[in-house]
Amino acid sequence: MKLTDNLIAAANKASHSKHKSRFDSLAEILSSEGKDIDKVLEKLEDFQVAIPSWALGAGGTRFGRFGFKGEPSNLEQKIDDVGMLHKLTQTAGAVSLHIPWDVPQDYNTIKELAASHDIIFDAVNSNTFQDQKDSRASYKHGSLSNTNKTSRDQAVAHNIEVIKIGDKLGSKSLTVWLADGSNFPGQTNFQHALQHTEESLKTIYKALPEDWKLFIEYKPYEPNFYSTVIQDWGTSFMLANACGDKAYTLVDLGHHLPNTNIEQIVSTLMMKGKLGGFHFNDSKYGDDDLTVGSVKPYALFLIFNALVYGMENNPQNPYPAWMIDASHNIKDPLEDLIQSLEAIQEAYAKALLVDQTQLAVAQEAQDVVKCQEILQQAYRTDVRPLLEKARLNQGGAIRPIEAYRSLSIRKQLIKERGEHSVASGL
Amino acid sequence: MKLTDNLIAAANKASHSKHKSRFDSLAEILSSEGKDIDKVLEKLEDFQVAIPSWALGAGGTRFGRFGFKGEPSNLEQKIDDVGMLHKLTQTAGAVSLHIPWDVPQDYNTIKELAASHDIIFDAVNSNTFQDQKDSRASYKHGSLSNTNKTSRDQAVAHNIEVIKIGDKLGSKSLTVWLADGSNFPGQTNFQHALQHTEESLKTIYKALPEDWKLFIEYKPYEPNFYSTVIQDWGTSFMLANACGDKAYTLVDLGHHLPNTNIEQIVSTLMMKGKLGGFHFNDSKYGDDDLTVGSVKPYALFLIFNALVYGMENNPQNPYPAWMIDASHNIKDPLEDLIQSLEAIQEAYAKALLVDQTQLAVAQEAQDVVKCQEILQQAYRTDVRPLLEKARLNQGGAIRPIEAYRSLSIRKQLIKERGEHSVASGL
Amino acid sequence: MKLTDNLIAAANKASHSKHKSRFDSLAEILSSEGKDIDKVLEKLEDFQVAIPSWALGAGGTRFGRFGFKGEPSNLEQKIDDVGMLHKLTQTAGAVSLHIPWDVPQDYNTIKELAASHDIIFDAVNSNTFQDQKDSRASYKHGSLSNTNKTSRDQAVAHNIEVIKIGDKLGSKSLTVWLADGSNFPGQTNFQHALQHTEESLKTIYKALPEDWKLFIEYKPYEPNFYSTVIQDWGTSFMLANACGDKAYTLVDLGHHLPNTNIEQIVSTLMMKGKLGGFHFNDSKYGDDDLTVGSVKPYALFLIFNALVYGMENNPQNPYPAWMIDASHNIKDPLEDLIQSLEAIQEAYAKALLVDQTQLAVAQEAQDVVKCQEILQQAYRTDVRPLLEKARLNQGGAIRPIEAYRSLSIRKQLIKERGEHSVASGL
Amino acid sequence: MKLTDNLIAAANKASHSKHKSRFDSLAEILSSEGKDIDKVLEKLEDFQVAIPSWALGAGGTRFGRFGFKGEPSNLEQKIDDVGMLHKLTQTAGAVSLHIPWDVPQDYNTIKELAASHDIIFDAVNSNTFQDQKDSRASYKHGSLSNTNKTSRDQAVAHNIEVIKIGDKLGSKSLTVWLADGSNFPGQTNFQHALQHTEESLKTIYKALPEDWKLFIEYKPYEPNFYSTVIQDWGTSFMLANACGDKAYTLVDLGHHLPNTNIEQIVSTLMMKGKLGGFHFNDSKYGDDDLTVGSVKPYALFLIFNALVYGMENNPQNPYPAWMIDASHNIKDPLEDLIQSLEAIQEAYAKALLVDQTQLAVAQEAQDVVKCQEILQQAYRTDVRPLLEKARLNQGGAIRPIEAYRSLSIRKQLIKERGEHSVASGL
Repeated sequence: MKLTDNLIAAANKASHSKHKSRFDSLAEILSSEGKDIDKVLEKLEDFQVAIPSWALGAGGTRFGRFGFKGEPSNLEQKIDDVGMLHKLTQTAGAVSLHIPWDVPQDYNTIKELAASHDIIFDAVNSNTFQDQKDSRASYKHGSLSNTNKTSRDQAVAHNIEVIKIGDKLGSKSLTVWLADGSNFPGQTNFQHALQHTEESLKTIYKALPEDWKLFIEYKPYEPNFYSTVIQDWGTSFMLANACGDKAYTLVDLGHHLPNTNIEQIVSTLMMKGKLGGFHFNDSKYGDDDLTVGSVKPYALFLIFNALVYGMENNPQNPYPAWMIDASHNIKDPLEDLIQSLEAIQEAYAKALLVDQTQLAVAQEAQDVVKCQEILQQAYRTDVRPLLEKARLNQGGAIRPIEAYRSLSIRKQLIKERGEHSVASGL
Repeated sequence: MKLTDNLIAAANKASHSKHKSRFDSLAEILSSEGKDIDKVLEKLEDFQVAIPSWALGAGGTRFGRFGFKGEPSNLEQKIDDVGMLHKLTQTAGAVSLHIPWDVPQDYNTIKELAASHDIIFDAVNSNTFQDQKDSRASYKHGSLSNTNKTSRDQAVAHNIEVIKIGDKLGSKSLTVWLADGSNFPGQTNFQHALQHTEESLKTIYKALPEDWKLFIEYKPYEPNFYSTVIQDWGTSFMLANACGDKAYTLVDLGHHLPNTNIEQIVSTLMMKGKLGGFHFNDSKYGDDDLTVGSVKPYALFLIFNALVYGMENNPQNPYPAWMIDASHNIKDPLEDLIQSLEAIQEAYAKALLVDQTQLAVAQEAQDVVKCQEILQQAYRTDVRPLLEKARLNQGGAIRPIEAYRSLSIRKQLIKERGEHSVASGL
Repeated sequence: MKLTDNLIAAANKASHSKHKSRFDSLAEILSSEGKDIDKVLEKLEDFQVAIPSWALGAGGTRFGRFGFKGEPSNLEQKIDDVGMLHKLTQTAGAVSLHIPWDVPQDYNTIKELAASHDIIFDAVNSNTFQDQKDSRASYKHGSLSNTNKTSRDQAVAHNIEVIKIGDKLGSKSLTVWLADGSNFPGQTNFQHALQHTEESLKTIYKALPEDWKLFIEYKPYEPNFYSTVIQDWGTSFMLANACGDKAYTLVDLGHHLPNTNIEQIVSTLMMKGKLGGFHFNDSKYGDDDLTVGSVKPYALFLIFNALVYGMENNPQNPYPAWMIDASHNIKDPLEDLIQSLEAIQEAYAKALLVDQTQLAVAQEAQDVVKCQEILQQAYRTDVRPLLEKARLNQGGAIRPIEAYRSLSIRKQLIKERGEHSVASGL
Repeated sequence: MKLTDNLIAAANKASHSKHKSRFDSLAEILSSEGKDIDKVLEKLEDFQVAIPSWALGAGGTRFGRFGFKGEPSNLEQKIDDVGMLHKLTQTAGAVSLHIPWDVPQDYNTIKELAASHDIIFDAVNSNTFQDQKDSRASYKHGSLSNTNKTSRDQAVAHNIEVIKIGDKLGSKSLTVWLADGSNFPGQTNFQHALQHTEESLKTIYKALPEDWKLFIEYKPYEPNFYSTVIQDWGTSFMLANACGDKAYTLVDLGHHLPNTNIEQIVSTLMMKGKLGGFHFNDSKYGDDDLTVGSVKPYALFLIFNALVYGMENNPQNPYPAWMIDASHNIKDPLEDLIQSLEAIQEAYAKALLVDQTQLAVAQEAQDVVKCQEILQQAYRTDVRPLLEKARLNQGGAIRPIEAYRSLSIRKQLIKERGEHSVASGL
């Protein structure tokens, strides 16, 4: 199925007048506070988040997986799903492929399909945490860090292959997430593992096209439960510096030890010009990969506050690549992604409303109470009318979840794809 | 100084018309959604949070303390401070005394003073975590759980004394927080410590007046760093059951291991009719005792959602005693408390807006996406106009922080009390 | 393959004289300290840990699984594996079946096979966290706690079926682990979920044969990442009390929030006569299910110290059921289990060496330094010669890992079973 | 009182023969495994840990402090205490001064006193987390990072003053620990705070004598509970690199988020030649500052394993400065320190016993089980006879705690200093 403008307009009908009156009320308040609403809207409209190709199917845990009906069973259907998401939300204008799960059969067809949905190809992702059928070497004991040169070489070659695939699609960056690490004390030599990883990354880096970037992800644990080679931002930052100017750190919200102050990491990386990419999700315990904003929306706002500050004050940092990296274990993946996109936009909008001038004054004056008031003033604002307006301006749905349901999209997909289709991936 | 109605009215002048238009907008939206605004306002107005007597001075850490000017140096001044808080916020209509820091000299004077501020005496708190000068026995190795009977007896006697003091003031409950525990494996016999504690609590329980309640607090660590005798709600609940019908568990938000689902504990306790009291604060790492709502406002909302549900559906549970238990290390304590009260009211108001009927339907239908939408629908609402209205209805300040500052209250207090006054307490 | 006494004797040859001299040295030291070595040996020899039927194959994570060669592909082979483990270690004299992964085809054959290995059937485990093919109702939204009665009924019926299967094999207990919970705030009504769970457990409880026990496991998170219905020992304890005398709490070492004092929970449960079962594993971050003793051996010792104390002082508590519940992602499962059994025996032996009389005196005297010295005195002792002796006394291997390797057991298994056999389970 | 050789010899009498036979047994076993015992003993004898001047008195928490009798009330007495520790343990041959708590009155006297105890002056510590009486500027809102230049300048000047004091005593390094950070989101501008800190550190760095080192400590939280300017090793490492070759990171065991893999951080820093100093303590929850080895002795061993590896394989890293940084809330500080020193020596001895050659082979062969066996082989060895021997060789006590008690040292100190002496410090 394809969402036409007419369908969207029909879905918008019910909420249009409510939206208008609420937007007007909010606009009046914000204007009276000196906010430039058009500028905020413009920024919201420009903000596009990549959807990873593996996110369109149901996720699972080590205890199993509960399937979902109407899952996309090939890359074309995945791109169609992203297209629908983008049509509804006007915020999902990119897709991020995972190789080898989603190698295109025919590049031109895929590129045309994506273009027809107004979708670009963002960072490509390599996979060296699973053994592929008939692979020469195993990643059981690591990939880029493996003591076994054959495994390292295979992992490096795979990454270079992924760059080539991405290049044909118009991607401009490679994201490397390593599961490498160890489950038991003594299992690996930390220094050798780090050196191997640095050398492997440098080899991959050399294969990057001129205008590409390399994103180095970090994570403290899982799937290894004693150590991870790139355990924290400090290690990723060190490796990115060792590689060169086109190498950056990528922050995934779920990849931190309990209580880590992530917004401070974001600030430091942007000051150093090294924040390359960002993976959104939410969590209460570990890398839970829940819907963005479903557990700690204020933390998300604080991170966006740091991001907005960096985007305005750190020209040394490139514009980061945004992606949702969540798992959809019990929700319809499309609805889950809509909720995530809404939460991201909400946090971004609120961060844009922070009065940075007043905040700087209060910080300088060491007026702690006032600093808090300024952040809370922005956070407590109900920005939903702004998000609705930004979507509406671009032809999207005022209330995407409601539209998705009223248009019976999942029902259509099941009809088209069947009840037992399974998305490639984990 | 005393805040008169005229002063409040003067402070309200600036924000009055803004408040009115915003309240009207919000009321229209909420009414269109079928909410009974008057009922919400009534509940907000009825909601009163006790201020502990030790919260009016600057707090500190083990690394020291930075004083604050104009601190109250005796119980009268502390009650005056609570009076001002209550006048501004109309939410702080109770004080919770800590003995022996705040033993009244003259009960009648103190009671009249409190009454003049429209303040009642809520739960009294005993202190068996510090040795008082010239005390017979030491609490270095515990109080109610001490292997040494002299220490236990002293601690029991102190608690009974605290009940007597509270009784003279009109308090109706005793809060027992124990620092008892151990710093090192092997230091204590867990079973003996628990048995001693149970026996001591039972003795105290017997001394309770007929219409009193006993609140048993739990905490996993600090100031002991290996074990705490009452380490979790399960232990407190067990002890409360052992004592009898008038004994209850008290939940302090900061007294949990990382990532504990506190709202589920609240639900279980209320279902069992055993949630007696609640201490508000916020934290990122441990028992940080930060301003309520400053770090995890959504978690606070979820807890209030459980509290509202329990108050509506669990007649077996008494109405809980509310108290703020935070430490004011770098803020003016009065401003800090105003921010806490605002955050509490905000979370309560949002929880009152949750559509419980729809939520029950969505839960029954296992519509996970819808359940989340319903909670977020309430949480994303900007309820500040409701809080302003509730305060205004009762003669309080529309915006208490602004009023506090425009009325130069701290300046007045410094003038009256001097720069170097120090509040009794830690 | 079957391990004969001759094979074991051959494997023991190399280390026999070393063992003897080391055991004699240690025996001399311990005797001089007044320890009754024979009694310690007797207790070590009596201590038997169940091996779960799913532990004989490679485990995995949500990111995939790396297979292992020579995995048992049916229940008979699994029991053979446990038999070999038991022959080598003399500590694995029980197997714990997981239903429906390991339903016997022919009960007599299976019972005879187990008896031939001197293995009994310990607690049986139900599975309501996965949907089985063609099942009527789904557990996607819970089992015993499901809002949907059909799912609850199916889960109850399954548990009763598991009891019947266990009864035919001679098992005397049922372990219930629930994955039930929620991923998002608002998704479930905590009180309803708890009530449903209590009712379901009571129905199962009624179906228990007279001499059976019901073990109720708790876990704070995973596979659900917002809430778990039985989140902690307090909840499990409450449910066990609600069911009756034959219901107990089961403690799994990995099922706790960060930094939980597990030994204190053990002490409390044993004092209340409610510790029914114990699952061993180790972890650094969450429920990592690593080899027992590989990460926190001192914590394991402290837990055994509490267990030994309880077994000696709490007649109200039954003898607990012991089981290893780990995942073998990158090690040969049999070697992994041998390492786990060794670590369990080590911790138990050290706990048996704690001078409980002196410790009680030091605790009473509040001599904190001495208490620590007493525990460390036991812990720092190298008890390996004791474990070797206990095994040798019963016909096992002095050094099981070395024996396993020198006897080329895995090689034999691969020869017999092939490289691509896959164990039933996750 | 001063411990003479005769007193030590008398104290050793009781345990001498036991020691000899146990040492001989152990020596035989280790020799048979190819260990060079003399080399291990030499390394143990060379290993000296600094005692901080604030550690000789009782510590406390924010909930108060329980005093200890016979505390040293001036610097001379503190050095005497360290002298006694060193005499008993032969491991405490250095003292680390905290300024301004321990500014010498007469440098020559103090130096001679220290020399008479065979004690050198290790790193000096500055204090910018407390306001000193009559100080011009406050550290309430930070020191080296303060937005207020006056506060920053004062903090920089204080550090330079501390260098001068240390220089007069023969110290060769300055340790900077900053409490700087914030309690509330928005309170500080992360980037400005980091920039100010870098500039301040650079100014201090410039004042370092040629042969000095600067140690930069990191800590994630406390006394600030939202953010810390130098929150992790990555930030410290970045700052050390910005300062220059003489600047290093200092690792304090308690200054990490839950579950951090500290040994990996140690390995990375040593590979980069940037591990300057090390603070020992133990903890279960946060920066609990408990006796070293009292809670997680295996973690300590793993860290020493990384340290030993680095000292042998990383010539680019200087020999680190070792210090105990614990708090003695309920133990006699001297006994507490003896227990800490014993635990440090134990972990070091065990790490020295790890068969690095075999381990490298097993790691290369990806023999995970074997790697674990090798570490556990070393860890499970009872090395107490080695520690006794190392002490005895140098004239120390075989069993320092027993000697301390049999010589009634605390009793003597109380007699000399009185019951109510209070050590300077927190």
